[in-house]
This record gives sequence, structure tokens and C-alpha cells, in this order.
Amino acid sequence: MEFPLLDQTGISGFLSDWGRNIYMPQGIFYWSGRAKKEADINATIGTARGRMRDFVKGGDDAVVTCHLPMFARHFPTLPPDDVFSYAPVLGKPSFRKAWRDWIVYKGGDLGKKIKDLVTLPMTTSGVTGGLFVMTRLLVDPGEAVVSPDKRWGNYDSIVTLNCGHPFESFPLFEGGKFNTVGLREALLRTWEKQPKTTLILNIPNNPTGYTPDADEAGRIRDTLLGAVRESGKRLAILFDDAYEGYVYDDKGVTRSVFFDYVDADPNLLPVKLDGVTKELLFYGGRIGLITFGLHRSWVRGLDLDALQSELDTKVAGVVRTTISNCCHPTQSAAEQILQQREQLLEERSGTVRLLAERVRVLHEESRKYDPAEVEVDPCNGGFFAFFNIKGVSATAVAEKLITKYKVAVVPTEKKGQGINGIRVAFCGVPLEDMRRLCQAIPQAVTDVRQENA
Amino acid sequence: MEFPLLDQTGISGFLSDWGRNIYMPQGIFYWSGRAKKEADINATIGTARGRMRDFVKGGDDAVVTCHLPMFARHFPTLPPDDVFSYAPVLGKPSFRKAWRDWIVYKGGDLGKKIKDLVTLPMTTSGVTGGLFVMTRLLVDPGEAVVSPDKRWGNYDSIVTLNCGHPFESFPLFEGGKFNTVGLREALLRTWEKQPKTTLILNIPNNPTGYTPDADEAGRIRDTLLGAVRESGKRLAILFDDAYEGYVYDDKGVTRSVFFDYVDADPNLLPVKLDGVTKELLFYGGRIGLITFGLHRSWVRGLDLDALQSELDTKVAGVVRTTISNCCHPTQSAAEQILQQREQLLEERSGTVRLLAERVRVLHEESRKYDPAEVEVDPCNGGFFAFFNIKGVSATAVAEKLITKYKVAVVPTEKKGQGINGIRVAFCGVPLEDMRRLCQAIPQAVTDVRQENA
Repeated sequence: MEFPLLDQTGISGFLSDWGRNIYMPQGIFYWSGRAKKEADINATIGTARGRMRDFVKGGDDAVVTCHLPMFARHFPTLPPDDVFSYAPVLGKPSFRKAWRDWIVYKGGDLGKKIKDLVTLPMTTSGVTGGLFVMTRLLVDPGEAVVSPDKRWGNYDSIVTLNCGHPFESFPLFEGGKFNTVGLREALLRTWEKQPKTTLILNIPNNPTGYTPDADEAGRIRDTLLGAVRESGKRLAILFDDAYEGYVYDDKGVTRSVFFDYVDADPNLLPVKLDGVTKELLFYGGRIGLITFGLHRSWVRGLDLDALQSELDTKVAGVVRTTISNCCHPTQSAAEQILQQREQLLEERSGTVRLLAERVRVLHEESRKYDPAEVEVDPCNGGFFAFFNIKGVSATAVAEKLITKYKVAVVPTEKKGQGINGIRVAFCGVPLEDMRRLCQAIPQAVTDVRQENA
Repeated sequence: MEFPLLDQTGISGFLSDWGRNIYMPQGIFYWSGRAKKEADINATIGTARGRMRDFVKGGDDAVVTCHLPMFARHFPTLPPDDVFSYAPVLGKPSFRKAWRDWIVYKGGDLGKKIKDLVTLPMTTSGVTGGLFVMTRLLVDPGEAVVSPDKRWGNYDSIVTLNCGHPFESFPLFEGGKFNTVGLREALLRTWEKQPKTTLILNIPNNPTGYTPDADEAGRIRDTLLGAVRESGKRLAILFDDAYEGYVYDDKGVTRSVFFDYVDADPNLLPVKLDGVTKELLFYGGRIGLITFGLHRSWVRGLDLDALQSELDTKVAGVVRTTISNCCHPTQSAAEQILQQREQLLEERSGTVRLLAERVRVLHEESRKYDPAEVEVDPCNGGFFAFFNIKGVSATAVAEKLITKYKVAVVPTEKKGQGINGIRVAFCGVPLEDMRRLCQAIPQAVTDVRQENA
């Protein structure tokens, strides 16, 4: 299949060989599309439909997707066709549009300025779905993916274990600040061996909760744009915005840094990965979204709808051949939520305040730590904090924490990278337990140290 | 990671290299599993939880997954923790158990006899999810997958376009019967080049609606078991049971043929792929299930829970790295539906009767066809019928149907395989339109023939 606009814009140059070959076959969709416009008998769609009264006792004359009334009772607020039928492969058009409006709204003035350069979002199964789809579309065999050493463990599972690509890591922090030098060097190392690279950037960060302030976000941007311009190489950035909206001080950037990269350089492809999962607090809904940022030079004089259609055909090629499409009732409900933006923000603020309060206690307690024993990474957002353990094994500390203090955490030891610490998911810990948790950690370190002595 | 029981049973021998390597990292799950048993402060899980009153005005003391009340209003019948939190990677244990009970129930006497040899089902995103997961787990690069020429188009997209494996096809019918000779030859052809092969069998079939009777199902089984025994090669069979339950005469087998293959031969791995999608008429719910059938000789004296755990770790490795997990509220609702089995069957029977009636009209009309012009493949189940078009292009007929008769169908032409026909999705066509649809097809053939003359 030909993708003339992806070629013309240069977007094809960011794709892997596999990504250049994948597409969604148009056969059934071509004919079902025409059916809606040209036919009065539609025998193209593989869902049973009929008049309610013909398949349900006491049903009415409405023609709908055949379904079980006992199922419909669980989804009383939505019409059956917004629940039981398939959603389109990349999501309900109205939901996609609502998510785009939500993105633009959150972008503020900058959002308004670049809104024509932000594609319609494409629905996937959570941020994991977005990461998997984009890894396959972007990364060629043998190519490394760049990401900080402190990153969500599932990145390694998706990118390395599943897709077979190594990581080019760099230490997330240097002197308590985001390590822009390490980032730059990691990129340059990959570009020595490959013509393009992919970076995954997660703000607020899992597992540390790190969120840059405006200055630091600017330094990161300068570093990335500088590296792209000096090298003349291509860079795709996947912005894992899972924790967008969860910032607990007045310094951390609350607007996704994605916006700062749209239209920044023709060799740079910014891709925003969102999840209804945390952003709208619906983990079980399995709805995520992929949104591309375009460079103005690519699209000048171009039919944007035609370009969207080519991008859709690519992404839909992956979605259709792995999961077919995403959950319909959770999309439909999310769409309704997005229509009431103020109420959404108001209702979510309860949870944001709750988490902020837990982080406040975490900082209060961790300030008392001896930095030679335990040191907490910068944490002003997200769902997690990372406690670096010095001198003893983090796994031994976690073992001690659970057996002696009945406190469960997840230890991480990456010896080659100098990581030895525990991830504390404060998101799930009641406020009244936060102090005990924070106090137990240095105690457990002392216990282990004494046992080792 | 080691899989001693998969090795000991020989199941590893059915896996691809990739399948032998994939696994779900146990870190977080190991610690969160221990947290439930050993801890009273759980800081392992990445979901925000708290007392309702702490994040919702007027909330109570219950500790739940933090969520937006405006979202919860859409799911009033289910507790928030059955909707908003993540479902486990392979599905809610209670839902998995309920689906296993449902499978065993549908297996009747045979189901009871072999129920210990049927694994706990593993949840995926629909049958597509099951097909994708199993293709990756089973098929090595260069290996062909066997399936009849008349098959769901997405098989080609999943297996070939996405995963890179060719098909070894055989004509589905020979003399109006299932082509067991072709099936056998296709298997033998693949085994000449590869030590193991994968067959996808879809009953009732898409696009034809073909469902074998007991005799024919027996002949297919004899053919497959004969081929496995004579060749000494391994065969994995993916039973695409998407249309299970939709049989419209009293001859077609209503019990999944999967049961006939469990414990049949140690070189045979039967895998049942189900979808809540059509079986419970919830296309938009995105819930499918993978269930393995075991051979008694594999598991004698074995800890079945430990074997299940190894199989789970494999399948979860794929699910976790592509979509993380499946939709929670639709699983929770489906579980409740399964608890009321009689009502479920009663409510579904309305749709089965509706479709049976449409097929009755289809047969009434197609009996009048001149077999030199149009011939309908055997159709006694499923959602589709396939009309073979003779002498003129099926695409031209579809074009004529939509433009002149306002009837939309999907044409298929595979010249190399002698396929030239149209798929009629009778599932979506009201009864009163079925006659017009069936009459329009030979008329369109005549129109095209005259235009060509």
C-alpha cells in the first residue's frame, strides 16, 4: 500500500521497515463505508442487528445491535449501540475529537497556537498499547531505544523482551537535577550506529515522581533540539503522559512538555501517549491514546485529512492485527466525562489533593533521613517515590520491611547501573500510614546493616 | 526464566523460539502478592486508593480505588473496585473460573470427562487478541500456518502482515463437503519443511457459515489425528470458536469440536479461542479467552496448578507487553451474566432464532439459483454466507449490487485460489430485506454478464 503523504512529509523516515509495511486492509471497511452512503440493505458488517422486538420479548421497533438485556442492565446510561457494537478500530470519532479538544484545552495558549499541528488521537489499550504500537512502528531490529535508567519496568518488557530492542540508558539524575548531559550522550551514542532513534520520556516520572520545573524543562528541550540539529539525525520522542495532571508543588510543569516539541524541528517527531487510566482514574477502562505532533514545514499546502488518514491506516494496521479495537462502553463513558470538563477537574482534584498530602508527609519524614543511608529522589508528582538505599541490598531491605514492619514495597537492583532502591507507591497508602511507612524504611536499613555487621 | 513443567510435558516443543523466551517479569507481582498476605501497609500497587470521603465530597469510609463519581454513574450495578481498578493481567480469577465452568458445561458429558485437562482460560482482547497471542507463542519465522482458503480476512492480517508468516491454504470444500484430503495435504506440505505446524479451524466458519455435522466432524478428526500419528510431527490447533452457539439446523455440531481433540494425542495441542464478542453478543466489550487442552500423559503425577502458572506466565508475557490487561467492567459484567446461565441462553435464543430465520429465507431463495451463475456454500451457522460467482468478477457484481440495487456486500477475489464471490453478512440484514438481497445477487450477475457481452 502506498503512503504518498507520509513519504512527502518525511514521516516515513521515522518509521521502521515493519512500520513502513504495515497497513490496515481496506476491503471490508471500503465496502462498509460505501454501504452507509449508497445502500439501503447493508450486508457488510459482522454484527448481528435487528429490531429489539424481534430478539427480545417486549422489545420495541428500534433497530440496534442484538444484545442480551441482562447485559444492558449493567450499562443503563448508554444506548446499546454505544456499548455492545464494535467501536471503530481507532476509536469512536466523537471520542477522538473530544480527547483532541481536551489536549488542546490543556495546552492553553500554546495549545491554541499549534492545534492544527496536533493529529486526531488514536485509541489504544492504555499507555501500554501506545508504547507497544509505537515501538513496532518506529524501531528497527538492532536499534536501541533511549530512556533514563529509572523508568517503568514495563518499558523493558515491551521494548526489549517483546520487541527485541536494547535500551541505551542514562542516569536520570546528576547532582539532584535531570541529567541533560547523560541524555545527550545517550542519543549521540545511538546515532553513531543508527540513522534515527526513539526516546521515551515520562513526566511525571515513574518510579521517582520527578517533574521538572519550567527552567529544567527548558534545559531538556534545549538539549534535545541541540542534539537533533547538530547531528542532523532523526528523533522520535514518545511522551509517556500517564501521570499528567498529578503535580504536587507549584514549580513542576503541569502542561505536558509534548507541546514544547510540536513544530520544533523537522527531524523531530513528538508523539503524545495518554491514558484514561490515570488521567481520568479509570485503570480498568483500557483506553489510551496516541497523538502525533506535526511540523509546519511538513504540512504546508497539504490536505491534513488525507495525512490523518494515512497515519490512521498505519496505526490501525497494528491495532486491528493485535486487538481489533478498544472497549466501547468505556470510550463512550469517557467521552461523556470530557463534555463536563469543569466537573471532571473538580472531581479529580479530590484525588490530586489526597496524593499531594501524602507526598507532603513523605517529604517531612524523609528530610530526617541520613543521606548516607537513604535518599529519596526528587518527587513532586505522579504516583510513586523512589528511595535510594545505600550500603545494603534494597531487596534485603524490602524483605525486612515486609517481614518485620508489615510494609510492602518493590525493590529494584540494577547493579551495572548503580541502582539500588525501593519504589514506594504512595498512591495506594492511606495518609495515616505514610509516616509509619517512611519511618520504617531507615529502620529496616539499620536492621539489615546490623545483621550484615 | 525457567519453565520446567512446560519442558517436562513437552508443551515447550509447540512453542516458537520467541514463545520460549517470553515471560511476565514477576517483580512487582511477586511483591504485591506477598503484600496481600504479609503486610498491613501496601505500597506496591500503582493505583490511587483512599477512603471515599477523602477524595469525594460526602463520600463514606470505604477504602476504594480513587475514581470520578461522574464516571461511576455509568456503572451503577458494579462496585468501583470491579470497574475502575486494573483487572489482573490474564483476567479476574472469578471471571476466568466462571468461563471455565461455562466451557465445561457446554462440553456436556465429554466436558465433565475431561474437565481436569482444560486449563483456566486466559483473558485477551477478543478472539483477535487470542489469535495474535497464540501466533506469536507458536509460530517461528519461516513457518507456515495452515487454514482453509475461505477464512476470516484478519487471519491474513494477523499472521502474515503483522507476524510475517505465510499461509499454507487448502480449498475449504471439495464436492460440497469439508475437504479433508486438502487439509491433510496442506499439513503434510508444511511438515516437510518444519517440525511443527499450527492450524486455525473456525467452526461455524466465517465467511461461509459452514458447520459440520457429527459425521463430518468425525472425518475431520480422523484426518487430523491420522496425519499427526503418521507423521510423528507436532500440531497445534487454534479453534476459533467465535461463532459457537450459532447453528441453525439440527445437524450442525453445537458443541465445540475442541473437546474432541483434548487428550487425543500427545503431539497435538488444542487451543480454544473464545470471544464474549459474539458468544454473549458484546462486541464492544473486548473480552476473549484462550484455553488450552492438555494430554493426560503430559500431566500424570504433575502439579496442575504449577503447570497453569507456567502457562499463565507465558501468555501474560504477551498480554502485559502489548495491552497490559483487559477491560475490567466488561469482565465483571460478563461474570455476572455467566452466573445466570439459563437466562443467558434464553435471552440469546432470541437472536439465534432471528438469524436462523434469515438463513431459512436465504436457502429458500438460493435454491432457485442457476448453479452456473451463483452457488452458495454450505451455510448452517455463524453470521455470514458466501455466494460463489461464476463467469464474471465478484467485484463487478458487488459494484452493480450497491449502485443499481442499493445492496452492500463484500466481494473477495483470490484468483490463484479460484475464489470469486461475495460475503453476505446476513447477521445485519432485517428479515424483510433478505429476500430482496438474495434476489438481487443473480440479477446483478446477469447485469454484469450482459454488460460484458
